[in-house]
Formats: sequence, C-alpha cells, structure tokens
Amino acid sequence: MTGPNAIPPKASTMTLETVSASKCFGGTQYVYAHEARTTRCRMQFSAYVPPQAADGPVPVLTWLSGLTCTEENFTVKAAVQRHAAEHGLLVVAPDTSPRGEAVPDDEAWDLGTGAGFYVNATQDPWAGHYRMYDYVVEDLPDVVVANLPADMSRRGLFGHSMGGHGTLVVALRNPDHYKSVSVLAPICAPTETGLGEKVFGAYLGPDRETWRAYDATELVKDGHTCAPVLIDQGDEDEFFKMGAMKIDAFQAACAAAGQPVTLRMQQGYDHGYFFVQTFMADHVAYHAGILNG
Amino acid sequence: MTGPNAIPPKASTMTLETVSASKCFGGTQYVYAHEARTTRCRMQFSAYVPPQAADGPVPVLTWLSGLTCTEENFTVKAAVQRHAAEHGLLVVAPDTSPRGEAVPDDEAWDLGTGAGFYVNATQDPWAGHYRMYDYVVEDLPDVVVANLPADMSRRGLFGHSMGGHGTLVVALRNPDHYKSVSVLAPICAPTETGLGEKVFGAYLGPDRETWRAYDATELVKDGHTCAPVLIDQGDEDEFFKMGAMKIDAFQAACAAAGQPVTLRMQQGYDHGYFFVQTFMADHVAYHAGILNG
Repeated sequence: MTGPNAIPPKASTMTLETVSASKCFGGTQYVYAHEARTTRCRMQFSAYVPPQAADGPVPVLTWLSGLTCTEENFTVKAAVQRHAAEHGLLVVAPDTSPRGEAVPDDEAWDLGTGAGFYVNATQDPWAGHYRMYDYVVEDLPDVVVANLPADMSRRGLFGHSMGGHGTLVVALRNPDHYKSVSVLAPICAPTETGLGEKVFGAYLGPDRETWRAYDATELVKDGHTCAPVLIDQGDEDEFFKMGAMKIDAFQAACAAAGQPVTLRMQQGYDHGYFFVQTFMADHVAYHAGILNG
Repeated sequence: MTGPNAIPPKASTMTLETVSASKCFGGTQYVYAHEARTTRCRMQFSAYVPPQAADGPVPVLTWLSGLTCTEENFTVKAAVQRHAAEHGLLVVAPDTSPRGEAVPDDEAWDLGTGAGFYVNATQDPWAGHYRMYDYVVEDLPDVVVANLPADMSRRGLFGHSMGGHGTLVVALRNPDHYKSVSVLAPICAPTETGLGEKVFGAYLGPDRETWRAYDATELVKDGHTCAPVLIDQGDEDEFFKMGAMKIDAFQAACAAAGQPVTLRMQQGYDHGYFFVQTFMADHVAYHAGILNG
C-alpha cells in the first residue's frame, strides 16, 4: 500500500510511555502508551507484570476485549491479577480500536472506535487506521518483547465476545505464535450475523470472499487449526440467546476438521464481566498449565 | 427538625427497584435503587448475595467507599465476590452521597456529590439531603433486612479512604451493630487536616465541637470503642505520604484507650483499587472469621 494510508517502516526503537503503574498482588499493573506503526496513532495497552518476572522472562498471555471496551475494562473488572501472580504470567490487554482526533468514527456503538473487530480495513474512511489485526499480530508483540520481561516462545491468547472472535481468528491464522487459546462468549461466525455483515461490509467492502479471513468458522472450514480451544458460554447471555455467537457452527466446523474444542455452558450467567470474573481463575490456570508445562 | 428539611416518616414498606442482576461465583451481584428516607432522594446500592443465602439468612458485610465513588467502583473493581461466595457473606455497598437534580453540588471533587463524608449536614445548602451518616446507620440496614436474606445479628463494616473514615465513625458510634471492623487507607482524624476543615466547615459549620462526632480519633479520645480494627495501608499511597490519613494519631488514641488496632503497612502499594483488590481476600476472611465464628 502507498499514499496517505501507507504504513511507516518499523521503528528501530519502540518507546513505551508509562501512563500508570500500581503494585498489585506483589507485581505491577501498568498502563502503557506508544505510537503504533500499524494503526498510525497513539495506542494504550495494559500489562500486568507478575512477581516472578523479577527472576527472568515469563510467558505472555494476551487478552482481546469486546465491543465498546478500551484496555481499561478488562484490567479493572476481570480480577485477573491474582491468578496471573499465582501462575507467573505476564498479562497484556490492548485497546479495541485506534483512537484520536485523526481517527474516523461512527455514531454507532458497533462501528468505529471501540469496535475495531480485529480486522485490517480496506475501505475508506477506515483503511488508514483500522488495522487491529496487524496491531495484535505485529505491533503489540514487537513493543512487548522490546520493553517487558516476556518469553515470546510461550504465548497464550484469550478474549471475550468481539475479543473472542479476535482471539480465534488471530490464533487460527498464526498457530505457531500461540500455544494456548481460550475464549469467553465468543463471536464465532460473524459473517453469518447481521452485526458481522454490517461491520465487515463497512471495513472490508462488499466482496464477502474477503470476509472469510476474519471468520473463525470459515477459517476452520478452510483448513486452519490452532491449539485446543476452551470456551465458556453463559446460557443467560442475551447476545447468545439472540443467536449472535454461532458457537454451534464453530463446533460443527471444528468437529469436521478435527480441531479440538471444549465448550462449557455455564448455567445462569450473562454476557458481562461478572461472568468473565467468575471463570477467570479457570482460564488463567488453563493457559498456565500449557505455558508453564 | 421541621420545615423543608424535615425527614419523612419511616415508610411501612420499603420497595427495592432492581437496576441490574448478574450471576457471579454462583451467587448474584445486584444493583438496587430505592427512595431513601434520610437523604430524601433515590439512592443506589449494590448487594452481592452469595450462594449460601439460598439456605437462609447470611451475615452482612457493608463496604463504605471513598471520594468520587458511586456504588459501582467497589462492585466492579474490588474482586470481592469470589471471597464473599467462599465465606457466605452478603456484601452491601452504598453510594457515597445523595444524588439527583434536587441535590446541591459543588464544583470541587471533595465536596457535594461523591463526597458525603458520612455526616449529617446541618448547614445550607447541604442539610436537606446530605445525611449519609443516618443513611448508613438507619436507611440502608432497614431496606436490606426488609428485602434481602440478611442476618442482622451478624454484621461487619469495612471501607476505604473516606469510607475508612465512615467505617470507623459509624462503628465507634454504634458498637453493638458491628461485630467486625476493618479499613484500608482510612482517613482517621479529618479534623486535623485541611480537607476535613474544608468539608466539615461546609457541612457542619464553624463550631468545631460539632465535628468531633465525625472524627474517629476524637471519638476514641471521648471514650468510644468498637470491635478490634484491622488496618491495611500502602506506604506508596500519595495521600498517606502527604499526611492526610493520620493513622498515627488514631493509633495513639487507641493505645491510650485500650482499643485494639492492627496496622499492617504494605510496602510499595498506592491508594487505589489495585491495592484494595490485593488485600480483599484478607479482609473478607477477617470478617468471616468473626461473623461465621
């Protein structure tokens, strides 16, 4: 790509600005900011550095958040730090979209800022900044390994809702990067839903063939695989009940392809962070069992 | 009191409106709203009902929050639910001030809404609604016992910062109500600080004798006692370092009066909810050890 939407060359140094730092469970909860190469704006992410990192690099567990979130929601609401400290994992959580005065937005809650959907947009006005797929796959790991005590040979990926979609897509397209994968209430087949048609149409244009690269179910059908996937899903989740998750379609594709999936339906739980918080210990332990194993 | 600031008679029924309800760690995290008699406005509070409440009333642990908070901060940031579910405690967290169009406010962050300081204001424009002492001591327990599976014979009180001040004052003035008391980064002697002089002057007027009823250290000097107090305080807390807490004055008064206090200085921790979250397990276990004992 050339012209005004061209991506700058990879900087030889990647400077992190510390937005905040607070001791938590013997480690430190940071919020950092940096100039992102792919999204061409200042991006924030949070990083919990566990006490074990004082003795050397530790595994990295990256969380992808859902619609409307910044890096803050997960960081303050998921109660992940206790478990990260117990298991010695560095937990990284990026924002869900580019932000700033130069970044296009939309009045809708499900398009524009807070709704990057982990795609590389190709359509105006989004193509210049909305490159969250590349941000998660390239920029974020680059800046993490350059600045934090991260063992990049032991990486896990997890996420919630739109971030569950992002987790599955990123893991399926980069199976060598992530040894462990889990999701809570994930959007599993966005191209089969009205929401997916709206946002993929806006970001990627009308050619549905280009959407397949960002649909976990289609990726599995196309032969992509990744580490075994743990899924927790509440049966009182309003989005699940309206059919937005399509976990059944993902399960069917995985069964046909031999991709291991464990789905745990959780009775009475809804879509929010009280659900996420409840099963956070299980998810961190699942990743730690693989990454520390 | 008569006239426009008179408190209405206690209603024969106290209706709770459910603002939200989400399953969490096998119990339910509620946010409720009610028309409060003492503050004469609609008040919200949160209540975590643990799974054990299905078998009958459980002990009640009430949290008082700090400056700028609503009931939400503690509820989403403190990670209390896991521990409340483990120990079978009903955890209640009120707002920190009256709110609404009819409620006076101030542009400052430390006066007016979000800054009720758990006093009964006597000065205009505050006296009509700013009665958070009575709200915590009367209204909130009344509406809790009328609607929730609460064993009011087993109650504990804890809080943070301005809510640590409220906890100590309410416990010292009502020692029969609370079997267990703990605080994190508490304001212990507000009348000795510039902040206390400002807000007590505004709410209570210039007669400093009237301030003593809302100063934990003065209450202890005046012969009040309560259950043994557990205090956690971070040594990197910016408010602590500027002398706003006066824990030493409180400790000295308690030592002279024989009031048991355990102070734990926590190295490297600041004033925020990452500190609170870190020691939440200890505080809930401390209360449970007394309330379930």
